[in-house]
Amino acid sequence: MGRIIIGVLGPGGGATAEDVKAAHELGRLVAREGWVLLSGGRGVGVMDAASRGAKEAGGLTVGVLPAEDDAGVSDAVDIAILTGMGQARNNVNVLTSRVLIACGMGPGTASEVALALKARKSVILLRAGDEAEAYFKSLSGGGVFIADDPRGAIEIAKSILRGRSDLHSADT
Amino acid sequence: MGRIIIGVLGPGGGATAEDVKAAHELGRLVAREGWVLLSGGRGVGVMDAASRGAKEAGGLTVGVLPAEDDAGVSDAVDIAILTGMGQARNNVNVLTSRVLIACGMGPGTASEVALALKARKSVILLRAGDEAEAYFKSLSGGGVFIADDPRGAIEIAKSILRGRSDLHSADT
Amino acid sequence: MGRIIIGVLGPGGGATAEDVKAAHELGRLVAREGWVLLSGGRGVGVMDAASRGAKEAGGLTVGVLPAEDDAGVSDAVDIAILTGMGQARNNVNVLTSRVLIACGMGPGTASEVALALKARKSVILLRAGDEAEAYFKSLSGGGVFIADDPRGAIEIAKSILRGRSDLHSADT
Amino acid sequence: MGRIIIGVLGPGGGATAEDVKAAHELGRLVAREGWVLLSGGRGVGVMDAASRGAKEAGGLTVGVLPAEDDAGVSDAVDIAILTGMGQARNNVNVLTSRVLIACGMGPGTASEVALALKARKSVILLRAGDEAEAYFKSLSGGGVFIADDPRGAIEIAKSILRGRSDLHSADT
Repeated sequence: MGRIIIGVLGPGGGATAEDVKAAHELGRLVAREGWVLLSGGRGVGVMDAASRGAKEAGGLTVGVLPAEDDAGVSDAVDIAILTGMGQARNNVNVLTSRVLIACGMGPGTASEVALALKARKSVILLRAGDEAEAYFKSLSGGGVFIADDPRGAIEIAKSILRGRSDLHSADT
Repeated sequence: MGRIIIGVLGPGGGATAEDVKAAHELGRLVAREGWVLLSGGRGVGVMDAASRGAKEAGGLTVGVLPAEDDAGVSDAVDIAILTGMGQARNNVNVLTSRVLIACGMGPGTASEVALALKARKSVILLRAGDEAEAYFKSLSGGGVFIADDPRGAIEIAKSILRGRSDLHSADT
Repeated sequence: MGRIIIGVLGPGGGATAEDVKAAHELGRLVAREGWVLLSGGRGVGVMDAASRGAKEAGGLTVGVLPAEDDAGVSDAVDIAILTGMGQARNNVNVLTSRVLIACGMGPGTASEVALALKARKSVILLRAGDEAEAYFKSLSGGGVFIADDPRGAIEIAKSILRGRSDLHSADT
Repeated sequence: MGRIIIGVLGPGGGATAEDVKAAHELGRLVAREGWVLLSGGRGVGVMDAASRGAKEAGGLTVGVLPAEDDAGVSDAVDIAILTGMGQARNNVNVLTSRVLIACGMGPGTASEVALALKARKSVILLRAGDEAEAYFKSLSGGGVFIADDPRGAIEIAKSILRGRSDLHSADT
C-alpha cells in the first residue's frame, strides 16, 4: 500500500516571511502524522520551508520539479522528481497529493488550487487572502476549506482523509 | 513567420448560454482579424462555440485536447493537437497563445488564467464574475484586462499586440 | 472535420545532407496531398527542411516545440505549438499525427518511433539505417514500414490512410 | 541532499517470466545498495517485480504512473507519482533516474532508452535482445552498456556513479 502524500504548495521567491514560517510548521506537522510531504521542490519559499520542517520532524519529502536537472532543488528534498515540463508539472502535484494545502498565494499556487478543484480534490487554503478565499469558494461548492493556522490545516486534512472525501463531488 | 494565435478559453459542460453566445462572437471576430483561434478543442461549451464562430468567418482553428484520441473533438477544429496529458495541456494553451481571452469561468479556465499570469502573458477576462475579476486583479498588477463584450475584448487584444506587451512584467 | 495531419520526424542538428534533402521532398509531397505537415518545429535539420518543402508547395505547417517560447522556431512553421515540456512533447507529435514518417535517425527520432508503436500508430522509416530497421521490425509486427525514397513513403502513407489502418493491432 | 534514484524499466503485460525474475533480483540489489528504486509503477511485469524485490530488501520504491488515479498501481510502490500524462511520463522516469536499467524490451521501454540517450543519460541493457543491443549501440557511442545478469547491471551502475559519468557526452 502506498504512503499517504500531502501536498504543501505555495510561492517560491514571492513568499512572505509569514508564509515561510507557516510552511515550516506545516512540514513538521505533516511529517508527525506519518504522511509524506510533497512540494514543488525548489530551494526557495514555501516549498523549501515545508520540506525543511518535514525533515526536522524525521519525515520523507518528495519534490516535483519543473526543471529537467537538479539545479535549484531544495537540500531538504529526499526524492526529486525531475519533470522537465515547466508549470505543466503543477498538475502532477495535484494528482499525486491526497489532500492539498496552499500556504500563501501567487500565480503558480493559484493554478494548482484551480487544477485541484478541476480534479475534484479537496484544497485547504492558509494565508491565501480575502479575494482568493472568496473566489475559490465561489468556484467550488464543497472542495475548498479555510484554515486559520498550520495546526488547523492539519485537523482539516485529517477529517478529509477520515471521510474518504478526498474526491468531492464538484460541479464542473 | 508564424501566424498570430489567440486563445479563447472557457468552460465546457459548465458554460452558460450567454458564455456560449459570447464565445461564438469572439470566434468570429478573432477570425476576421486574420488570427488563428486556439481553444481546448472539445465539442462542448465555449471551446466549441468559439471554434464554430471562427469557422463561419473563414478562420483557421486549432484545438489542444486533453485526450490521446480524437473522440470528443469539436467538428469545427481544423488542427486537433492530441496531447494525452489531461489538464496539464492547459499550460500548452497558455504558452502557445499570444493573448488569452477567458470567456466565462470554471476551475479549468481559472487554472489557465493563473498559468498565463505565471508565464507573464496578458489575459482578458470576459464574463468572469466579480470575485474572479477582483482576485486575478489582486494576483497580477499589469497582466489582467477586463472586457465588457466580445468586441471590447478584441480591441484590448489588438492594443496588447500593438504594444508588443504580450509579456507583461509580472512580479512572480 | 479536422484536417489530416502527417508527422515528419527526424534529427535536428545531427541530420545529414541527404536526410535534409529527403525531408524537403517529403514536405512538398505531404502538402501536395492536401495533408497538414507536423514536425518538431525547430529551425534545423529534418524539421526545418520538411516545413520549408511543405510551404513551397502551398501547404500548412504545424510545429510542436519543446521550448516554452518561440526562440528557435523554424520560419516555415505556420502554427507553433509551444509545449514547454522538452522531449515529453515527442508523445504529442505521435498522438497528433495520423501517420508518422521518420526521415533519418537519432535518439529523439528513435523515441518517437517507439512511442508511435506503443500508441499502435503506423510508422514509415526512411533512411533509418539497417540496425534501426531490423530493431523496429523486431519490436512490432505490423506497424513498421520501410520506404526507399520520399515518393515511396507517401504511397505507403496513402495506403495506410485508405485502409484506415492508422491503428495497427500491436502486441504490446 | 537527495537520495540516489535508479530507474528499472521494462515491459508490463509483455514481460517474459525471465524478465520478471531478473527484475525482482534487480529490485533487491538496488535496495541493498541503499538506492531508491524508480519504476513505471503499474502492478504488472517488470515494474511490479522490481518494486517487490526492492520492498523485500527493505528499500524505498517510487512509481511514476501514466494514469491520473491510483487504479493499477503496484502494491509494492511506496510513493506513487500520478502524472496523468500517459506515455509522456516516460521522460519523467528518464530525467529523474541517475542511471537507467532496462530489463526486457518493448515499445514503451524502447522509448525510455531512446529518451535517456537523448538526455545524455547512461542506460544499462539487460535481456534486451540482439537487435536492440546492436541498434542502441549504433545510436550512441558511450551511453549504452550491456549487462549479462542483474548483478552485472548493478556493478556497471556503481562504476557509472563512481565516475560521475551519469551524463555521457553524446553526439546528438
